[in-house]
Amino acid sequence: MKPLNYGMVGGGSGAFIGDVHRKAIRIDGLATLCAGCFSRDAEKSKAFGAELGVAPDRLYTNYLEMAEQEAKREDGISFVVCVTPNISHYEVCKAFLMNGINVVCDKPLTWTIEQSQELVTICKEKDLLFGITYTYSGYPAVKQMRQMVSDGVLGKIKFVNGEYPQGWLGTPVDETSKLAPWRMDPKVAGISNCLGDIGSHIENLVANITGLKIERVCARLDRIVEGRTLDDNASVMVEFKGGAKGLYWSSQIAFGNDNGLRVRIYGEKGGLEWFQEDPDHFLYTPSDGPQQRWSRGRDAFCESAQSYSRIPAGHPEGLFEAFANIYKAYIRALAKKLSGENLVPSDLDFPSIEMGLDGVVFINKCVESSNQGASWVTLG
Amino acid sequence: MKPLNYGMVGGGSGAFIGDVHRKAIRIDGLATLCAGCFSRDAEKSKAFGAELGVAPDRLYTNYLEMAEQEAKREDGISFVVCVTPNISHYEVCKAFLMNGINVVCDKPLTWTIEQSQELVTICKEKDLLFGITYTYSGYPAVKQMRQMVSDGVLGKIKFVNGEYPQGWLGTPVDETSKLAPWRMDPKVAGISNCLGDIGSHIENLVANITGLKIERVCARLDRIVEGRTLDDNASVMVEFKGGAKGLYWSSQIAFGNDNGLRVRIYGEKGGLEWFQEDPDHFLYTPSDGPQQRWSRGRDAFCESAQSYSRIPAGHPEGLFEAFANIYKAYIRALAKKLSGENLVPSDLDFPSIEMGLDGVVFINKCVESSNQGASWVTLG
Amino acid sequence: MKPLNYGMVGGGSGAFIGDVHRKAIRIDGLATLCAGCFSRDAEKSKAFGAELGVAPDRLYTNYLEMAEQEAKREDGISFVVCVTPNISHYEVCKAFLMNGINVVCDKPLTWTIEQSQELVTICKEKDLLFGITYTYSGYPAVKQMRQMVSDGVLGKIKFVNGEYPQGWLGTPVDETSKLAPWRMDPKVAGISNCLGDIGSHIENLVANITGLKIERVCARLDRIVEGRTLDDNASVMVEFKGGAKGLYWSSQIAFGNDNGLRVRIYGEKGGLEWFQEDPDHFLYTPSDGPQQRWSRGRDAFCESAQSYSRIPAGHPEGLFEAFANIYKAYIRALAKKLSGENLVPSDLDFPSIEMGLDGVVFINKCVESSNQGASWVTLG
Amino acid sequence: MKPLNYGMVGGGSGAFIGDVHRKAIRIDGLATLCAGCFSRDAEKSKAFGAELGVAPDRLYTNYLEMAEQEAKREDGISFVVCVTPNISHYEVCKAFLMNGINVVCDKPLTWTIEQSQELVTICKEKDLLFGITYTYSGYPAVKQMRQMVSDGVLGKIKFVNGEYPQGWLGTPVDETSKLAPWRMDPKVAGISNCLGDIGSHIENLVANITGLKIERVCARLDRIVEGRTLDDNASVMVEFKGGAKGLYWSSQIAFGNDNGLRVRIYGEKGGLEWFQEDPDHFLYTPSDGPQQRWSRGRDAFCESAQSYSRIPAGHPEGLFEAFANIYKAYIRALAKKLSGENLVPSDLDFPSIEMGLDGVVFINKCVESSNQGASWVTLG
Repeated sequence: MKPLNYGMVGGGSGAFIGDVHRKAIRIDGLATLCAGCFSRDAEKSKAFGAELGVAPDRLYTNYLEMAEQEAKREDGISFVVCVTPNISHYEVCKAFLMNGINVVCDKPLTWTIEQSQELVTICKEKDLLFGITYTYSGYPAVKQMRQMVSDGVLGKIKFVNGEYPQGWLGTPVDETSKLAPWRMDPKVAGISNCLGDIGSHIENLVANITGLKIERVCARLDRIVEGRTLDDNASVMVEFKGGAKGLYWSSQIAFGNDNGLRVRIYGEKGGLEWFQEDPDHFLYTPSDGPQQRWSRGRDAFCESAQSYSRIPAGHPEGLFEAFANIYKAYIRALAKKLSGENLVPSDLDFPSIEMGLDGVVFINKCVESSNQGASWVTLG
Repeated sequence: MKPLNYGMVGGGSGAFIGDVHRKAIRIDGLATLCAGCFSRDAEKSKAFGAELGVAPDRLYTNYLEMAEQEAKREDGISFVVCVTPNISHYEVCKAFLMNGINVVCDKPLTWTIEQSQELVTICKEKDLLFGITYTYSGYPAVKQMRQMVSDGVLGKIKFVNGEYPQGWLGTPVDETSKLAPWRMDPKVAGISNCLGDIGSHIENLVANITGLKIERVCARLDRIVEGRTLDDNASVMVEFKGGAKGLYWSSQIAFGNDNGLRVRIYGEKGGLEWFQEDPDHFLYTPSDGPQQRWSRGRDAFCESAQSYSRIPAGHPEGLFEAFANIYKAYIRALAKKLSGENLVPSDLDFPSIEMGLDGVVFINKCVESSNQGASWVTLG
Repeated sequence: MKPLNYGMVGGGSGAFIGDVHRKAIRIDGLATLCAGCFSRDAEKSKAFGAELGVAPDRLYTNYLEMAEQEAKREDGISFVVCVTPNISHYEVCKAFLMNGINVVCDKPLTWTIEQSQELVTICKEKDLLFGITYTYSGYPAVKQMRQMVSDGVLGKIKFVNGEYPQGWLGTPVDETSKLAPWRMDPKVAGISNCLGDIGSHIENLVANITGLKIERVCARLDRIVEGRTLDDNASVMVEFKGGAKGLYWSSQIAFGNDNGLRVRIYGEKGGLEWFQEDPDHFLYTPSDGPQQRWSRGRDAFCESAQSYSRIPAGHPEGLFEAFANIYKAYIRALAKKLSGENLVPSDLDFPSIEMGLDGVVFINKCVESSNQGASWVTLG
Repeated sequence: MKPLNYGMVGGGSGAFIGDVHRKAIRIDGLATLCAGCFSRDAEKSKAFGAELGVAPDRLYTNYLEMAEQEAKREDGISFVVCVTPNISHYEVCKAFLMNGINVVCDKPLTWTIEQSQELVTICKEKDLLFGITYTYSGYPAVKQMRQMVSDGVLGKIKFVNGEYPQGWLGTPVDETSKLAPWRMDPKVAGISNCLGDIGSHIENLVANITGLKIERVCARLDRIVEGRTLDDNASVMVEFKGGAKGLYWSSQIAFGNDNGLRVRIYGEKGGLEWFQEDPDHFLYTPSDGPQQRWSRGRDAFCESAQSYSRIPAGHPEGLFEAFANIYKAYIRALAKKLSGENLVPSDLDFPSIEMGLDGVVFINKCVESSNQGASWVTLG
């Protein structure tokens, strides 16, 4: 297929995640960066865009102008990637959607539940394709586990343990640190730091694999390091619709852990375990036999999982490839839609805007629970 | 030193844990089994006692007779080991204490808080030595971590994650199974199965290493497998006196886990991690350097930890040795006390009756919390 | 910098490794594919080149034409990537070198020692830049270990254990398998299969990290699965100049292993261990302290290693990134050279043509040793 | 059964391995220490024997006197445990055999091949039961792997990789060290240090599991640390009768390793891997399915393996239990034999004197090979 054109808002010089998005898209070459507004500072944005090879007339002063102008062009972008700070996701996404442009947005989708609900409504009305880059959904092993659960290999799911320990904020962060300070600034990071940033990955990953919907939560958000205004550690007891239970722990003060996302899923007939730092493998234990370690590329993954594997077993695929897989699914679906074909459910193999909404609800309700002294709050 | 004489109540033919106690004591040969009441069935008890080489006149019909008779003998037992079902710990221990005989008892100490408090009181009044066999306190690596925390290596402790997943009760247990059915019988197992059996090990292990006291808990005890009358999975949010927080998970339905007790302890300056299935090692991560894997026998354990190591690094020591270490400390302290010397705190290097009481309080308060819909309950 | 133009010989539709090279180059976007001869079948080559977006006039019928034409163009390619079957590396590389075009070639460089020596001579005479894609040299952890050895952290190196077990050829390969049959065909694979393919990675990785030169080898190449004409398992005893010793094992019949390259390096003062399937970490054990697990992105890698890390600790980087790093170093050095600047040794941070020659010598001498019944053969 | 009486030669105060033997025997209580000659210094021996509770009249001045006197007693020992330095195994074992007393001896059996052959001959003539304490044969997981190989689960065995790295002799050992100096003294340690001590464990473990017999070896014994008179590192290429191949590496200079015995066994249909520091588990990979991790106590071990498991899955059993298992098998067989019953092959579930001879041949031939510059030597 011919590469689609895409634009980017945010992700300027030095921004970590914007660069990851661009590199990930380049791996498969299914889309080409053609327009952008990379910084609030127009000069910086233009200089950086030029470095990236974007034509000068498609480097915009602000995202609104970009949305309007690109919508008018014959060769306008097919989708925009929104990688601005969390606080502005809502306004940026809304502007592009209102101008009829498809969107891929970083998580969390928005700050408030109402904002996300509004985006969902607009997206439906405009019949646009919206993807959320929950990174870990892109791994072939995750897709394989999802299929096994869906196939009933575990029987009915009964309990889920999800954890996401990191250690990089275990000590007070000094002012010269590039990454951390804004995370503790409610004006930028929103209502939660740790839970919003990494706890929400647990929520999405479990939803992705199991299809379970959360009914209510009892959450305690801690500010472990003194002086913090937002949480750096969070414990959540979860109850799912249908009776399954869960326990989620996320932390940024757990020295010795880098990016330790781990989910363990137990059903009536077996268990699954996946660890993000070893993403090509997962453990499957049937109730009546030895534990099995499945390996991407060697063991018999289903077609929908295997198709995202690029190299043979034992050659590690990592974060960039997971990201590239989300884009691969999104761009293929978009190209199919743009060509006038009807999409079928299996085309939508990327996190949807509804999952984005679920994530925002989860974060907000956990904060509400914690503010009430860790009481039970229904997600409604 | 000359081996002490000891007696045993419970632990008859086929009983798993009584055999572990006897084997563990035999490793060091510091005490000799001289008396017993191994079963409620007097014939069985005598036949089994004979097999074990106990003299016929010291094989008793019931524990009360044994306590009274042994107390009268010149060569009476120095201590008794109580390995009866949980429900009768209270009465057995009380009988021996009232007759002036020192006691080692399996955990949990008793069923109710009041029973434990009464035993603590009697024990003090009678000036007797009481040990509880919380197995995992016996490992040299655990003792080393305790010393490091005590030395301030981690700074102030801020958060603890403890988990104890097992998978052996993940499916309904049929009637022919030897081990499981009584565990689900409230008349034998008491008020809790999973939390009482293994969750309480987390509680003790954390207390042992950190010295932290629990202030309040918010617990949810689940009956995952249908038809169960007692919990087989439990989540507990913990708050410690002084402000530290914790999260404990224990489970018997987590397929793929055998005896997965793991504690992760985070302070201001570093973290520790220990996994019971690899007991000779622990991970220590300082806030400012690479993660270290300490190995018993190779790395510089403190004297009080190293002295419990029997063989060089890399030669695994396991459950029997951990048990033997508890007995080694208990018997040495008892011998010293019996010889008239004063005991100093470092002599009491085994779980105390007060720890036994703490464990019973923890279990009862968690059950209370869970019965109230997972609300916060203060331990008082 | 402006992306360089590059061309590719080999790597047609369905070819695994050519695709990896292209994807890896795209990650950083430092070079653009502008010319190619992707297949011996001119029609296929042109169709595939069109898919890749290469202009029709730069899709060549054969590599010789390509070398000559590109050499003449004002906008000719700055370097060519040779990813043809091993047997034709020599002729392809020679053609481009003779036409004054820089080369990146897959390993092994050539089939015979004489061919490699000739390429080295031409390369020097023409003053061209030649890189070999020994994948594993690209990992930041490997670069960090190399620096530590160079800094004397281990003292003098004394012994190296390298192994590379795979299991995918453990059973006779049927005719429908896409990958394996040619590997057993001496006309295509050359004089060795297992040792030549993966054993040579051990050789290069050890040389890369330690700088040691092999003096002599004693090798046994096995044909484990019946009917094979080339080796599928190989053991090599190594002696290095200066007295260090080594033991290398590579295998394709080791069920349960995917791509298990592991090196363990021991010096007077410590040891290092790295496992390719967990490439972001390595173990360092000083002679006088606990084992340390270093983590890319978290622990203090030297600047020359850290600069190749793209994302924070715990987010896995894999094979594509390792490849991309080789190209990053090569293209940067080439751009600098083309701009007229003098290269310094630290610019040449990719496997050189001399390493390629060393690899070919190693393979040939091991085969010679094995053919003589595993006798000692000097590399000269 | 009534415990048998046993005696011990060697294993005096402070001797590590003698204490392990005594503790291991005590675990099951199947034999009682009744006689001994624990030291060449008669006073020390008697003092130590008294501590152990041995009657004064059975504490002997030398092993010859002990063998003669015990042979004469009505209640004489049923077997003797020989834990003297390697150099005197021959003379001690011979003395007891000649006096009709059964023997358990530490490995290696003797220094020379001729000595071992003589002991085999005497043992047969006298119809005595002889056991060698190759520790690792005692683990249930090892017994289960042996059964699986015997059942043909792997098909014909094709290749074996065995390694045993340790790091404790990586630096020159100072004179105050208790353990190491004698190991480098040819007068005490014999003709080899590293290979003789730990390399021979690989040889026995592989023989135990696979039943393969070695046909010839090509060995290189290194003295890595300067000034050593005996090897501290050894590489051995092995060829078995019937065509299988092997590669063994043992080392005492591999910093970061404690007691890293690992065997990997590959057949036509699958592979097995076992690591001594995690003895309760092993990996089994069939050629056509995911890798399985078998766990003692949980997964379906055969009866002959399961019967040596004392505690449930996940509760580690270690070195003492492995030793105890060897004694359990030996003592049961001996008791059966003494009672006049005929022994069947499954009774002899401990390393035999023939295995002891094989080990001595292996060591001697490897030394011979190494002395000839790592040439191939047939074991004959």
